[in-house]
Amino acid sequence: MPETYVNTRIDYAVKDISLAEAGRHQLRLAENEMPGLMALRAEFGPSQPLKGARIAGSLHMTVQTAVLIETLTALGAQVRWASCNIFSTQDEAAAAVVVGPTGTVDDPQGVPVFAWKGETLEEYWQLADRIFDWSNEGFDGPNLILDDGGDATLLVHKGVEFEAAGAVPDADDPSTGSGTVSGSGTVSEEYRIILDTLGASLARDPQRFTRMAEGLIGVTEETTTGVHRLYELAASGDLLFPAINVNDSVTKSKFDNVYGIRHSLPDGINRATDVLIGGKTVFVAGYGDVGKGAAEAMRGQGARVIVGEIDPICALQAAMDGYQVARLDDVAGDVDIVITGTGNTRVVTVDNMLALKHLAIVGNVGHFDDEIDMAGLAAVPGAQRIEIKPQVHEWRLPTGRSILVLSEGRLLNLGNATGHPSFVMSASFTNQVLAQIELYANRDAYPLGVYVLPKALDEKVARLHLAALGVELTQLTTEQAAYIGVPVEGPYKLDHYRY
Amino acid sequence: MPETYVNTRIDYAVKDISLAEAGRHQLRLAENEMPGLMALRAEFGPSQPLKGARIAGSLHMTVQTAVLIETLTALGAQVRWASCNIFSTQDEAAAAVVVGPTGTVDDPQGVPVFAWKGETLEEYWQLADRIFDWSNEGFDGPNLILDDGGDATLLVHKGVEFEAAGAVPDADDPSTGSGTVSGSGTVSEEYRIILDTLGASLARDPQRFTRMAEGLIGVTEETTTGVHRLYELAASGDLLFPAINVNDSVTKSKFDNVYGIRHSLPDGINRATDVLIGGKTVFVAGYGDVGKGAAEAMRGQGARVIVGEIDPICALQAAMDGYQVARLDDVAGDVDIVITGTGNTRVVTVDNMLALKHLAIVGNVGHFDDEIDMAGLAAVPGAQRIEIKPQVHEWRLPTGRSILVLSEGRLLNLGNATGHPSFVMSASFTNQVLAQIELYANRDAYPLGVYVLPKALDEKVARLHLAALGVELTQLTTEQAAYIGVPVEGPYKLDHYRY
Amino acid sequence: MPETYVNTRIDYAVKDISLAEAGRHQLRLAENEMPGLMALRAEFGPSQPLKGARIAGSLHMTVQTAVLIETLTALGAQVRWASCNIFSTQDEAAAAVVVGPTGTVDDPQGVPVFAWKGETLEEYWQLADRIFDWSNEGFDGPNLILDDGGDATLLVHKGVEFEAAGAVPDADDPSTGSGTVSGSGTVSEEYRIILDTLGASLARDPQRFTRMAEGLIGVTEETTTGVHRLYELAASGDLLFPAINVNDSVTKSKFDNVYGIRHSLPDGINRATDVLIGGKTVFVAGYGDVGKGAAEAMRGQGARVIVGEIDPICALQAAMDGYQVARLDDVAGDVDIVITGTGNTRVVTVDNMLALKHLAIVGNVGHFDDEIDMAGLAAVPGAQRIEIKPQVHEWRLPTGRSILVLSEGRLLNLGNATGHPSFVMSASFTNQVLAQIELYANRDAYPLGVYVLPKALDEKVARLHLAALGVELTQLTTEQAAYIGVPVEGPYKLDHYRY
Amino acid sequence: MPETYVNTRIDYAVKDISLAEAGRHQLRLAENEMPGLMALRAEFGPSQPLKGARIAGSLHMTVQTAVLIETLTALGAQVRWASCNIFSTQDEAAAAVVVGPTGTVDDPQGVPVFAWKGETLEEYWQLADRIFDWSNEGFDGPNLILDDGGDATLLVHKGVEFEAAGAVPDADDPSTGSGTVSGSGTVSEEYRIILDTLGASLARDPQRFTRMAEGLIGVTEETTTGVHRLYELAASGDLLFPAINVNDSVTKSKFDNVYGIRHSLPDGINRATDVLIGGKTVFVAGYGDVGKGAAEAMRGQGARVIVGEIDPICALQAAMDGYQVARLDDVAGDVDIVITGTGNTRVVTVDNMLALKHLAIVGNVGHFDDEIDMAGLAAVPGAQRIEIKPQVHEWRLPTGRSILVLSEGRLLNLGNATGHPSFVMSASFTNQVLAQIELYANRDAYPLGVYVLPKALDEKVARLHLAALGVELTQLTTEQAAYIGVPVEGPYKLDHYRY
Repeated sequence: MPETYVNTRIDYAVKDISLAEAGRHQLRLAENEMPGLMALRAEFGPSQPLKGARIAGSLHMTVQTAVLIETLTALGAQVRWASCNIFSTQDEAAAAVVVGPTGTVDDPQGVPVFAWKGETLEEYWQLADRIFDWSNEGFDGPNLILDDGGDATLLVHKGVEFEAAGAVPDADDPSTGSGTVSGSGTVSEEYRIILDTLGASLARDPQRFTRMAEGLIGVTEETTTGVHRLYELAASGDLLFPAINVNDSVTKSKFDNVYGIRHSLPDGINRATDVLIGGKTVFVAGYGDVGKGAAEAMRGQGARVIVGEIDPICALQAAMDGYQVARLDDVAGDVDIVITGTGNTRVVTVDNMLALKHLAIVGNVGHFDDEIDMAGLAAVPGAQRIEIKPQVHEWRLPTGRSILVLSEGRLLNLGNATGHPSFVMSASFTNQVLAQIELYANRDAYPLGVYVLPKALDEKVARLHLAALGVELTQLTTEQAAYIGVPVEGPYKLDHYRY
Repeated sequence: MPETYVNTRIDYAVKDISLAEAGRHQLRLAENEMPGLMALRAEFGPSQPLKGARIAGSLHMTVQTAVLIETLTALGAQVRWASCNIFSTQDEAAAAVVVGPTGTVDDPQGVPVFAWKGETLEEYWQLADRIFDWSNEGFDGPNLILDDGGDATLLVHKGVEFEAAGAVPDADDPSTGSGTVSGSGTVSEEYRIILDTLGASLARDPQRFTRMAEGLIGVTEETTTGVHRLYELAASGDLLFPAINVNDSVTKSKFDNVYGIRHSLPDGINRATDVLIGGKTVFVAGYGDVGKGAAEAMRGQGARVIVGEIDPICALQAAMDGYQVARLDDVAGDVDIVITGTGNTRVVTVDNMLALKHLAIVGNVGHFDDEIDMAGLAAVPGAQRIEIKPQVHEWRLPTGRSILVLSEGRLLNLGNATGHPSFVMSASFTNQVLAQIELYANRDAYPLGVYVLPKALDEKVARLHLAALGVELTQLTTEQAAYIGVPVEGPYKLDHYRY
Repeated sequence: MPETYVNTRIDYAVKDISLAEAGRHQLRLAENEMPGLMALRAEFGPSQPLKGARIAGSLHMTVQTAVLIETLTALGAQVRWASCNIFSTQDEAAAAVVVGPTGTVDDPQGVPVFAWKGETLEEYWQLADRIFDWSNEGFDGPNLILDDGGDATLLVHKGVEFEAAGAVPDADDPSTGSGTVSGSGTVSEEYRIILDTLGASLARDPQRFTRMAEGLIGVTEETTTGVHRLYELAASGDLLFPAINVNDSVTKSKFDNVYGIRHSLPDGINRATDVLIGGKTVFVAGYGDVGKGAAEAMRGQGARVIVGEIDPICALQAAMDGYQVARLDDVAGDVDIVITGTGNTRVVTVDNMLALKHLAIVGNVGHFDDEIDMAGLAAVPGAQRIEIKPQVHEWRLPTGRSILVLSEGRLLNLGNATGHPSFVMSASFTNQVLAQIELYANRDAYPLGVYVLPKALDEKVARLHLAALGVELTQLTTEQAAYIGVPVEGPYKLDHYRY
Repeated sequence: MPETYVNTRIDYAVKDISLAEAGRHQLRLAENEMPGLMALRAEFGPSQPLKGARIAGSLHMTVQTAVLIETLTALGAQVRWASCNIFSTQDEAAAAVVVGPTGTVDDPQGVPVFAWKGETLEEYWQLADRIFDWSNEGFDGPNLILDDGGDATLLVHKGVEFEAAGAVPDADDPSTGSGTVSGSGTVSEEYRIILDTLGASLARDPQRFTRMAEGLIGVTEETTTGVHRLYELAASGDLLFPAINVNDSVTKSKFDNVYGIRHSLPDGINRATDVLIGGKTVFVAGYGDVGKGAAEAMRGQGARVIVGEIDPICALQAAMDGYQVARLDDVAGDVDIVITGTGNTRVVTVDNMLALKHLAIVGNVGHFDDEIDMAGLAAVPGAQRIEIKPQVHEWRLPTGRSILVLSEGRLLNLGNATGHPSFVMSASFTNQVLAQIELYANRDAYPLGVYVLPKALDEKVARLHLAALGVELTQLTTEQAAYIGVPVEGPYKLDHYRY
């Protein structure tokens, strides 16, 4: 584990601070592709709307996140940051943020970051705990959380719960339950680590999270999973502070899912296999936003696309878009590439994998790795796993055929490519920044509950990305605005509008 | 005006009953393209869920509507029908419905229809009144309304209002206001006719609409405009009975707007002009559902498409779909075809039309004819209007150039082509039938208010259209359903899901 | 049969000269869509390169052909015209050409035209004979032929042959053979009529065609069929004058087949059936230029397209373009629409038609009506043919299912729509005019043989259509031209370049 | 320079023989994507048509080439191999071929290969010489050449020429000229090295190439450049043996250019920059086969594509495909990505680069690196070149903007991605093998000259790739074959057919 240095202006824990130079370079290029964030710096830099905000951030520590972090600080915030995944940190980005735009490797002037690529689960939760330790900055804790997946939010809620109980539950007591955590270990193993982390906190300071929760204005949450947790907390009456659901902004859910996947799916297949996509038969499981982007990308490369769906509305959309809609069970023998984008489990079964064409490619751009039944595959008698290269494995099957599994069934656009490109993340992160400003500036307008951003801000996010693409927006006349009953400057649509 | 015959089993008023044979033929073909309605007949024919329902229908009396009407009767309903537009009746469809599947021209056995192509406004409102006259069937009135645009609903609400007042307002008194009516005359002229119609009713029977309203279980409404009126009535406390908003079913708004326009826009341009679309520069004003369908259709024919938008989110979607996004003011001089699909007013200005290329085509697939400033065009000094053929006019402009205006600025997909095809209407009308069943069967579940159909029924509409397209839906396992927290049989998505 | 009037400046035979006004209107609109022809008028009008040319034209007498004819006369030619098909004349176009741009119905000043819609075969060949009768203009005959399908060329060659023999063969003598003629009657019936026509000519003037052939500089031929005949004549040594094969210009074969069909196929299906194409499964037989245009059009409307091919190269192209490639025999049961574009025979068999889905649409955009085995269909016991409307027939089959056959198996883009649009014909006809100029101006450069237009002229045709589409061509620098070894002004490609 | 080992069964010179294991792995995967070559092994393995053939091969020593080499040996040939480019060798593929399918690293049983990644020019030509040294196999030289770019062919021709002259020319004598060579050094520098190489040969054996040329049956050539040289040699009477032009097979030129680029262009951009292509404005210079594939790929990723063309026919095709066609000079300020695919020089000028948007991406998929004026860019006063990562350079310009240049202006699909995928190369290489068989088996049918493969073999190449894509070819009936005048088994098209 890298050392944390507090003998400079800031404390941090990154793999190699000397990577900062390369990282600063990448940040500069990424800034050009993140016009929404840069526009916020230009618009809000002078007024410093986040002055006084202390943000604990838990989100993949990538180059794009680095631009997000420096946008938050450019608007006046103080920030501490950890990653929300043990593998997703880009070490040069972490180092660059620590050094900051004006610092040097020897004199970092940036933001305390606690993240590196390849953390253990123990390290992960210890690092998560560090973003709540604002003693070095002279505070009890943050007043805002920026979360991705809900781990930071979880830590506070469980911390408060256990502090109220006076102790963490016994991990070996079956009644303790499993908590609600995601991550890379098995759930119960990871929950044990969380209990240890919080037990240690409790030992140090029995009211730490309780005090902190009182000071928290709220959280802005990035993902479906995290949002789901928040709605559950709100429903059960356990939510401790208001939350803004960034995930369901149009400029988030309809942008990164569709356009991000359209970009990164072929990218991942290409880097993994170099197989010509043109002419191939590709089965796309799921025709939600992810599946729509995936199917479009594959067709755009000249593949024949077959879609699988369980929802009749989405299935009808796929048919109307010209795709054959079939069951993988029925067509697996004709398929060269299977892509899952469902968020469900065992969408590709062992029987499917046994039926696929020789050296068919199997990959996931949905959610967890169980969209493809990897456990079932590993249990096939005689199945043999051969690493072709990292994140690309041939599985030789007792049928005499093989399949190629990408990223061991995990998200191939992350494992075999580089995830969503900067421009897509700019839309998501501009939502995040606006949500942080909204919570901080209008805290009284948000009683306990879970909110989506007002449509005007959603439209603002879009607006900030138009100039970079050369889009010339038409302006409503006052007559036209009156005619359709909207303000000239928007918002232009009812909340239920589907886009 | 055609005669109404009551000396047979039914009364009716259509242009020429002998057109029924040709109409029955078209119905048979349309039934093959309306699998949702036919599936409802198969599913619900035995149980007769609409037995006892008396439906007053006001909706374009086309071949597709004929299949709708006969589906309602196949499910047990009694029906009386008028069109909701003075021009939209297909006379052979009207005749076919009157004759019915088992009747003959000499012995009509079908449904009382009161509609022909080319009604006057006076005739229109008299015919509308006829669908509320159930004396021939032995009742005071209908117990359900199926409405398109809200004219039938308006008649009842105004009828009740004036019966309560004891008189209709004086049309010449400025305080009377204009009512809220659509239609082809000027508003005040048409409102005067409505007042006359209701005055005559009041004279015949001073409590007629009041009694009728008490017996009305509710209305199902097809369009944006009609739905808008209903929400206004509900907001002002004037709504007299529950309403189901069919327009905002996913299988309505995301289907007829996108896929209907994709079909009928090139069809209308072709029938009107025979001009090659390939290689042309087409400006599509608006990138909502209509604009999305329009842009896709034009690109699919090899046109270069430029999109105009006022909403930054839709503009960003257009850019992400690969379209140039610009203002018509800036690019008109390069444009061969301008298509509006906005629902707004003066989207194409006189200045735009003066700037277009010689013989550029100007057409509207949005809403009212003022999307193109036809009044402004007519007022251009020296502008000359030449009829090339019906619904296609060359306007010679003082610039020395001409433009070709389709359908005099009204909906070209109706005026120059044949509107939405049967398959698209099948989705809309299956929503209508399910909404009628829902209101009739579960009337107690719907207190006064405006409702959308439950998502399960929306999904059912989609489901009923899959087999016809050869779609094989994948079935969730119970494990998968539990994993994502939905019933195996759906509904599968949260209400705010955008598709 | 209409009268021929020679009491005015010109003789002619059209259906109704009063249609000229409507026709002139259509010409004016078509001129805007035929920029190649209009550019030739501008470029060559002053120099009159066709002064002295006497052109006998045999080509569908449509609005587009009218613009062609008036381009030829604008360049100095004298012209006489017949149609090359008994059904294809647009009577208002024929009348308009007779009246001419400066004439009136009472004082026609245009071109002698001999054509109307719905000629008998006897009339057809008598009218063909009239374009060779230049006595009214004071000549023995034309010095150039502009031909489509080769009938005019045939008449001269057979005329010369029989004049040499001193008599036409006995039509009842089996050794006479069948000639090589296309058309709508059975071959032997039509050949008998040709023999009658030529017998009458021989009786009037036993050396008429012999003299005429000596004065003929050459022929320019539009079609594959006509070109095929010319190569046969050249190979057998029977060709009487040089020929330019216009059909194989890139701007002809790669333009009207691909882009013309892309336009007119959906147009024909829509006008015939109003069936939604989106979501349907369409089988396109043949993936040559016609099939490529057909498949693109269907995909552009949201259909799922399956391609049938016999040529492995074209089949591989279809696969690489993302289409499923299958045999109709294997997939007919899943198909909603079958389109043939092969130029072959019995591509859709009776068994295929019996296997199709109920009310599947069957249409041909290839060549002759036997692409679909209409004779076999008519012979199916119990099959019943019902006219839905002109050119649309339901065939009820003993399977209990029906199919819809468009245009009785003939070209649906002609029968159910309006054929190639003007812009596409402009490219073809600009080739024709340049070919006429080339033959007339450089007659000594063309010894007996069949030629394609020099690539420079092919490129010129393209060049003349660019401005209308707003295309800005890049100009080679002299350095660049030298680098790739071409003149700055072209031609730019080797003859075998495939585009 | 690696050692050549002759103490085993074979001599060779590769970088690291121990890479063979990894290489064999990649070969196995590639074989699955090269169905044409594998089908030839199955078809011709038993009959050994290349028994007795001694092939000197000069072609990029990649994994795909390894499959080609082992196909040649599987058909009976003896082979010696060098790469045709100093950078293009994949060292693990070279090692794998040396070891062969049955050998081991300690006991190589494969093919003598002389190639590694990163040769010097001196090494390159010495290694080229080694493929002509068959002494170890007991022969004077090869009897067939398989060439890519013509370097092997050049060596023989120049060798014969200088042997006839008795000496190589003096490299310092200006009258010596520059030869006609491609490659990475400046031409005159490389020609000096060739002269040295041939001088050494002449010193060893003054009749070596003369004897060898007599034994050479012919050459099969892969590329445009090499084919161009061959036609020049034939035209000047200097060609020493027959040649088959593989480049102009349909299954070569219309496949690797279009489908290969469609695949590798976005792949290269993604690996180089991770920039979202969707929504960007991409300028594609050239709309030949390469440009067509490039434009389709960019549109398929949601970019707005503008095409530049100098050829009016290709420009019209681009317009008809829906692209804006403009001059880079006019639109550079709106462009995010510029891609060249022309084969010409200075297509992107310094002025263009100065006008592009900040951080615009500039890349070449055409031919040589001077499509982009890299020399001019380097000469811009104040321009600064910063390596972002290998093959990706930011050029900071005096305008204050930067551009990103990929692969220093050389082919980005090679430099930033992995070139054409295996499936595409399978089509090209199946042509190569059939050409080798054709020359060897039918040598008497090929007098001195340059030939394209008979269309039947071109079709065969396509046919061998269909099953892998699930294509089901339709079979002509004998009636149909007779109708269109082709054999049932093909070839199906005339030679000038354009596909």
